[in-house]
Order: sequence, then structure tokens, then C-alpha cells
Amino acid sequence: DGSLKVLSLNSNPKLAQEIADHIGVSLGKCTVSKFSDGEVQINIEESVRGCDVYVIQSTCAPVNQHLMELLIMIDALKRASAKSINIVMPYYGYARQDRKARAREPIAAKLVANLIETAGADRVISLDLHAPQIQGFFDVPIDHLQGVPILSNYFESKGLDDVIVVSPDHGGVTRARKMADRLKAPIGIIDKRRPRPNVAEVMNIIGNIEGKTAILIDDIIDTAGTITLASNALIEHGAKEVYACCTHPVLSGPAIERIRNSQIKELVVTNSIPLPPEKEIENITKLSVAPLIGEAIIRVHELQSVSILFD
Amino acid sequence: DGSLKVLSLNSNPKLAQEIADHIGVSLGKCTVSKFSDGEVQINIEESVRGCDVYVIQSTCAPVNQHLMELLIMIDALKRASAKSINIVMPYYGYARQDRKARAREPIAAKLVANLIETAGADRVISLDLHAPQIQGFFDVPIDHLQGVPILSNYFESKGLDDVIVVSPDHGGVTRARKMADRLKAPIGIIDKRRPRPNVAEVMNIIGNIEGKTAILIDDIIDTAGTITLASNALIEHGAKEVYACCTHPVLSGPAIERIRNSQIKELVVTNSIPLPPEKEIENITKLSVAPLIGEAIIRVHELQSVSILFD
Ligand SMILES: Nc1ncnc2c1ncn2[C@@H]1O[C@H](COP(=O)(O)O)[C@@H](O)[C@H]1O
Ligand SMILES: Nc1ncnc2c1ncn2[C@@H]1O[C@H](COP(=O)(O)O)[C@@H](O)[C@H]1O
Repeated sequence: DGSLKVLSLNSNPKLAQEIADHIGVSLGKCTVSKFSDGEVQINIEESVRGCDVYVIQSTCAPVNQHLMELLIMIDALKRASAKSINIVMPYYGYARQDRKARAREPIAAKLVANLIETAGADRVISLDLHAPQIQGFFDVPIDHLQGVPILSNYFESKGLDDVIVVSPDHGGVTRARKMADRLKAPIGIIDKRRPRPNVAEVMNIIGNIEGKTAILIDDIIDTAGTITLASNALIEHGAKEVYACCTHPVLSGPAIERIRNSQIKELVVTNSIPLPPEKEIENITKLSVAPLIGEAIIRVHELQSVSILFD
Repeated sequence: DGSLKVLSLNSNPKLAQEIADHIGVSLGKCTVSKFSDGEVQINIEESVRGCDVYVIQSTCAPVNQHLMELLIMIDALKRASAKSINIVMPYYGYARQDRKARAREPIAAKLVANLIETAGADRVISLDLHAPQIQGFFDVPIDHLQGVPILSNYFESKGLDDVIVVSPDHGGVTRARKMADRLKAPIGIIDKRRPRPNVAEVMNIIGNIEGKTAILIDDIIDTAGTITLASNALIEHGAKEVYACCTHPVLSGPAIERIRNSQIKELVVTNSIPLPPEKEIENITKLSVAPLIGEAIIRVHELQSVSILFD
């Protein structure tokens, strides 16, 4: 009957609830658990026949379990005659394996796209894909949302003076440019290079940061090595203070320790990946992407409903 | 150039080595590890261009990780121009989700088949699939090996007297029949039924077991509830002693405790799933499927090589 259902898997139930609240629906009833041997067990506990279903799942750690939950849920929905199966992956795991950098490497980001389509997804909504090219790994429509406006609005509301937005590497300059435009600030770039093999990297900085408030922006902060080294370099080169932000707080391994011991005054992240309590440290600020994703779902669903009129 | 390569992933490296030894090749060089955030990282460290590659991986626990290792390895091999990608899955995880028993259930066993084909596998070799119908879930050729001869030979070599082979449920009668034929023994069946809802199950036994040596046979022993209750029933009904055997020792949750406290004299399993040290208890005997699988690979590879002559 074309009604909209939002289902949550196990990676990010709080975000899923916020998204449902934003849209004004309750979460669909399902249980996603494990058998004794660790195999994923899914029970959808209400009819989805003829519904446009939106499944909320970030494929963050444990990535393989979260991915299999997603694929098995898609399989169950397909066999239960859902009208459309729409996958909302705020964080897209395996995105960094997006090309063959060396001989005989896999391209896991493409594999994941193929797996999701094979399982039976009709549409994907994602946020700040590590490379925008990943959109092209899908043959089904993909909506690519951006976290920059949310992060920029937050920094704008802080009323910081004399800001410079800094990209921690050459790959992130476009993203830094977008934030700088919104904050009406200049941009800087950390220009790492290794003069000779087995010699420490030199952290060159492109742009004048002397006495400025620097905001480092990246898409993913994983072990936090890049971002903490970048913040050191900025302070050494005369920045007054350093903020950092990212969309996806992977924060694995030594990340929290590094951030705690760093010169970063405040790290601003989104809830695309939930932070377990032990990672909720004082100088990390969380912003919600639920309104952004909720609006995207409403827009997509309107289009799907309108399309019925022309069927 | 059509040469044969055997690669091991992380689920069962010892079995993979035994298989390579049986065939008379060394294992191909590759490292299968994890990035800091838990994503699977695979490096194939020698050329596979033009090779017939056999990847050894049981999708036992942790099933989702082992499955993703397999899919990512297939992706890497495909992109590295392997001539054929042959998947050896002694244990096929998710095999018990092979049908919709209730509304809105997934059929994960079919999903897994689709995922393996989508990744790029050309052929699958498996052992004692929970349901032989799973062969039909694949469109690529699948070789279905059987553990009964290995288990039967072992019991034959023990020279037991007055044996009866017992299936712990109605689903396993065909398997029990095969072993009974080899041992020239009669069969029995445990006939569980619940007289009324919320009343304990009654363990009826079909066949005369009085004074006999019973051998229970199943494909998978998971939590060991079925097999230990069956062995109790057999002893209560007058069996002299009870042996048990299975191809796939999943042995999750309370399994080891139950077996230790049971009346089972000896449990015979294969190495399709490796036993961690804490599960290697005294009355469990392990038999190797390496010769069986090694022979299957040799046979398949001969066929592939012969086919070149007609290309
Ligand atoms: N989960 C991961 N953790 C750390 N590094 C990764 C991960 N996945 C891929 N990579 C590596 O990160 C690099 C891609 O990152 P980038 O250059 O920022 O696009 C590649 O060299 C990959 O081998
Ligand atoms: N990993 C698992 N552990 C325990 N039960 C399972 C598992 N996978 C599927 N099942 C259930 O086991 C039943 C199938 O077993 P069977 O009747 O022996 O074919 C189905 O009802 C499934 O819901």
C-alpha cells in the first residue's frame, strides 16, 4: 500500500529512532539477534507487504556482522514482498578499499555495492562517501548526503574569530573548500612529504595560519594519527588554537588516547557512527544527522509515492 | 598457465595445509588480516594470473568475518586474472536458514550462494550440506562430498559388535541408512514428539536397541542438546553403549559441557571445523577430510586442464 516503514538493525538504533521521530513514524518491529553459533537471526514482526521500507544501518565495527545483518534483512524484506527496499547507510564500511593501489588488491567497496544489489536493494542513501566515485559502484539510485553544512553551522554558531579551515591532506581539499565558503574563511592544506625513504615526514603547511583559529576537517577519523599530527604541526606553525571535525568517528585503536593527549581543543563529529561510552570523552561534541537523513527519506518517499500516480 | 594454486583463509589453516600436502603443492602466499577498525585486509603475494585457484575456507564462527574474507579474496583473485576461482567450503555456514519456515524469514543459505557467485566464484566444493537442496541454490557447478565413508571406516576399524546406527531425528534417516549399509547394521530412529503444547517431549525409539552398541549420526552438532538427549534415551531404553558422530562439530554454547556430562562414550567428528584447544576434550576423536578434499581438487583440476585441450 506504499506506506513508509523505518527498520533499524543493530549498528545505530539511537540514530534510527531519531530518524523515525523526525519523520513522525514508529520504528517497524523486528528482532535482529544471533543464534548460539553466531549466525545472524532476523525476525520481521509485522507485515511489510507493499511497503516502502527504509533500513537504517551503518556498516561500522563490527563491520562484517553489520554488513551481514543488512544483507540478510534485505533478503527477508524481498521475500516478504516489500514494495521497495531502501538502504540508509550513514557510514559506508570498506569505502577506503575503493581502488587497486597495488597489484592483486581487492576493491572491497565495489564488492559491497554488488552484494547489496544482489541481496535486493532498490535504492541507497549514504553520507560523505570516502570517495564520491563509490556512487558509480551502484547501478541502483544512490542519494549522497553531505555533512559539511551540519559541521559548518555548528562552528558558525560558536562565533569564532579569524578562522582558517585546514585540510589534513591533499585528498580533502574540496571538502575544506566547501566548509570555508560557508564560514567565509580561507583554507590551508597540510602538505606532508617524505624527503627521502626512511626519513621522517615533513609537515609543510600551505596557507598562513599565524595567530589564527584552525579548523581541521576530514571525512573519517580512524586511528587519529593524521589529525593529531596535523594539529601539532598547526600549533608549531603558530595557530592560536585548533579545532577538528569529521563526519564519521571510526576512532579505532589508539584514537581516543591520541585525541586526549593532543592539542585539539574540541573534536566535532556526527552520529553516523555511535560512540560507545568509553569513547565519549569531554572534548568530543556530537551532532545529529537524523534531520538530514529524515528529510532525505521524506523526499525520496514522496517521489516514490508520486510515481505511483503515473504507473 | 593453468597451474593449480591452493590458498588458505583464516578459518582452517591446518586443514588447508593438509590438503596442500595431499595434493603435493605448497600453499600460495597471501596474508589475510584486519585493519585497525576490523575491516578485512587481504594481500595476495604471488601472481595468480592464469591459475586455477582453490580457496580453502569453512564459514564457521566467526561466520560473518570468515564469509567476508572469502568474498573479498574472490574479488581480489578475479581482478588479478585468475583463470578459475574454486571455493572449497568444507563447512557451509548459514546452511540451516535454507527455507522460509515462518512468514518473513530470510533464506540466508540462498543469499550466501548468491553472494559467492556475485563475488566471482566459478565452482564450489562443499561437504555434507545441511540440505542437499542447497546445491540448487548455485548456478555454478558444485561438488558435494560426503563424510559418511570416513566416519563409517573409523567405526568399522574399531570392530564393534552388534551395532545399530541411530538417527537423532527424522531428517537424518537417509544419512543413518548410508552408514548402516556400510557397517552392515540395522538402523533406529529417535522419534521425538510433544503430546500436548507445554508438555515435555517424549523420546520414542523406533527400532530394537536392547543390548546393542548404538552409533548416533548427525551432520552438525551445534549446542549438542539433540545428541545428548538422544543418547540418554538410548541408554534408558537398554542400549549397551552409545557412540556419536557428525561431520561438522560446531559445538557452540553449552555443547562441550553437555558432551562431557553425557553418556556418550566417544564423539567422532571431522576437521571441517577446527576445534580450539578448550574444545579438544578426551572423548572427542577427530578424523581428517583432507584426503577426501585433496582428491576432489585433483579430480576437478584434471577436468579443467583437460578442457583446455578442447578449447
Ligand atoms: N579500514 C582501513 N583502515 C586503514 N586503512 C585502510 C582501510 N581500508 C583501506 N585502507 C587503506 O587506505 C588507503 C586508502 O585511503 P585514502 O588514500 O585516504 O583513500 C589504501 O591504501 C588502503 O589500503
Ligand atoms: N545457526 C543456527 N542455529 C540454530 N538454529 C538455526 C540456525 N540457523 C537456522 N536455525 C533454525 O534451525 C531450523 C532448521 O533446522 P533443521 O530443521 O534441522 O533444518 C530452522 O527453524 C532455523 O530457524
